[in-house]
Formats: sequence, structure tokens, C-alpha cells
Amino acid sequence: MPNSFSIKSRLWIEHEDQMFLGEGRVKLLKAIHKEGSLNKACKEEGISYKKAWKLLEGLNASAPKPLVVKSTGGKNGGGTSVTPYGLKIIAFYEDINERCWSFLDKELKKIEEIE
Amino acid sequence: MPNSFSIKSRLWIEHEDQMFLGEGRVKLLKAIHKEGSLNKACKEEGISYKKAWKLLEGLNASAPKPLVVKSTGGKNGGGTSVTPYGLKIIAFYEDINERCWSFLDKELKKIEEIE
Repeated sequence: MPNSFSIKSRLWIEHEDQMFLGEGRVKLLKAIHKEGSLNKACKEEGISYKKAWKLLEGLNASAPKPLVVKSTGGKNGGGTSVTPYGLKIIAFYEDINERCWSFLDKELKKIEEIE
Repeated sequence: MPNSFSIKSRLWIEHEDQMFLGEGRVKLLKAIHKEGSLNKACKEEGISYKKAWKLLEGLNASAPKPLVVKSTGGKNGGGTSVTPYGLKIIAFYEDINERCWSFLDKELKKIEEIE
């Protein structure tokens, strides 16, 4: 019998009752890390620079430690980068998502038995 | 050390790739079951009759079996009620949510160790 049901989830983490990390922020952080530039990350994500700034400001305001830093000067004129802490937090978020999906897929099987 | 992080989730179930059941539909079904009337359920939920109808139509269109039925006539002039199948599905949804929250709370503890 084909499994005609599926289950979806959206997770987000709060820190001290403020939004800390969800899908949108994770996507932006990953794009920044990949591109090494906030400008390029915005283009890749199809969001405005202004919206990205708002996301990063929200992130910094709610984070226990910085996930993203701006550097100025230097040979390449500075840029925006994800901190080692930020990279670990992204990995944690993705791992917990994967685990959650596996958990839910297993739980969902029981729904087919309901009559 | 107080646990300064918390994790939130939103779950929904699809049936044959169509939205089947999420928080909004579950809340409406529970209100219908409690009130025995779609009109009263709408008032309790603070939604319009039109919006409620759209939700129920979507529900019926995607469900493998009816979760809600309309009866006409009779001493009380008919009404809207949740089927036994619907009640079991609601219970399933609430149970899987509870299990998911417990699972995530346990998983989240590891985030405090990230440096």
C-alpha cells in the first residue's frame, strides 16, 4: 500500500523568549558563508539588502554570541562572515531538523491504521 | 543554569500531496465538536463563516474519509458534527505534537554545550 500521508514540520529556536533561529535566518547565514558577501547572498536568496539587514539585526539581538560578523578594510575591502559559533549552530539546526523528520515519519505510519 | 533556549514546532499532515490537517483545521474541528454548531464554533474561534467553510471544504477535499458532516432537519434543525474518524484523527494529531515537543526538548539540551 503506498503511503498516501506525509508529515511536514517547521522548527524554530528561541533564546530568552525571542526568535533566535528559523529557516529564513539559516538560509541567509548559509548563503553568506557560501558567498563571503552579504550582497551576493541577498542576490542568491532573492531578498533585499534591507530585509537581510533586518534579519541579521534580529539574529544579533537575540543571540548569546555573534553568529555573523562584519570586517572592514583589508585587501578585499572587508565583508560579512559567519563565525565558527554560527557554523556550529547552523549544523545543530539542520541536524535537529533531520532527526525530527525521521521521528515524525516513523510516528506517522500509525495514521494509516485509523478507521 | 537556566535553560535559556526553547524550541518550537509547527506540524501539518498532507494527504496525497494536499494539505490535510494543521493547527487551524484542528482548532476549528475541536470547536465544532465542542459547540455542536458551525456558527457557534466560528464565534468561538473569531473567524467568519465563510472562512470556516473554506477550511472545511479544503478538509473534505483532501481527506480520505469525511471528518465532518452536516445533518439537516430533525428536532434541532440539523447541524455540523465531527465524525468518529475525525475525532480519532484529531487525537492522533495532538498526540504526535506532544511526542514531537518532548523529542525536541530532549534534543535541544545539546545546544547549551555549543561554544
